[in-house]
Amino acid sequence: MPVFQPPAPPDFRPDCELCREAGGTLVFQAARWRVIRAQDASFPAFYRVVWRAHVAEWSDLSLAGQAGLMGVVGAVERVLRDALAPTKINLASLGNVVPHLHWHVIARFDWDSHFPAPVWAAPAREVVPAPVVRLRTPLPELDTRVARAVAALAPAA
Amino acid sequence: MPVFQPPAPPDFRPDCELCREAGGTLVFQAARWRVIRAQDASFPAFYRVVWRAHVAEWSDLSLAGQAGLMGVVGAVERVLRDALAPTKINLASLGNVVPHLHWHVIARFDWDSHFPAPVWAAPAREVVPAPVVRLRTPLPELDTRVARAVAALAPAA
Repeated sequence: MPVFQPPAPPDFRPDCELCREAGGTLVFQAARWRVIRAQDASFPAFYRVVWRAHVAEWSDLSLAGQAGLMGVVGAVERVLRDALAPTKINLASLGNVVPHLHWHVIARFDWDSHFPAPVWAAPAREVVPAPVVRLRTPLPELDTRVARAVAALAPAA
Repeated sequence: MPVFQPPAPPDFRPDCELCREAGGTLVFQAARWRVIRAQDASFPAFYRVVWRAHVAEWSDLSLAGQAGLMGVVGAVERVLRDALAPTKINLASLGNVVPHLHWHVIARFDWDSHFPAPVWAAPAREVVPAPVVRLRTPLPELDTRVARAVAALAPAA
């Protein structure tokens, strides 16, 4: 199991939950970023790529930092596509509530509770049986595949 | 005024509105992408960077294509930050309804109708006077600044 490594001052903000905590199931920790899985019953294949230092906006990173971070986002996206064959991938960096740079990478399915609306909109339907049992790849295996894919990027990013 | 250039076959899908139409106010047209401004009264500083060819997912692009596209997204973000001093920038590539690769770049303000929720959530308040008159930079000037910033990237992207 990877261990969450909070940023050190001056990159650490004590009032920021993504500085203090992993923010979900920690899948992989690199020097400058980590990958977590959000624990969302409606969207079980919902990962986040979190920049380690407290930075608000994507354009606060250098171009090299942006490229490294997006490489990680792309690797997670690719695993979700290969492992789950989702209807669509959703990517987003919002941070209105927690302004600590993080990318959402979400596998969406035409049967999910909100499709085709964004996950932040009102739900359109109840999903039975539970979404997690509908995934063609079990979550522990998915986490392992995500971790393996992003580990290959860790030295460079 | 830039002119919308639809993709040619086989990159064109007749049933896709982002293949057939600009999709908003056309701000800049490059060979491989365009920048449009969504005409959204609640979020006047809402731009989209649209890949010209019909491609569904960000990871369908080559790494060079991804880097070029994200460079444009970053340039738009930087102009919005410099010109408007928004509370937050929101970036997203969803495409559940129109699966033609496009990035949303949205300047958010703590006074806007949905803040801090995403623009796709339920509104939290009515905004009077209208959002457009609250921007510190008028929209025509903002469009010009966005166009100038992304034009510098057009040959390489």
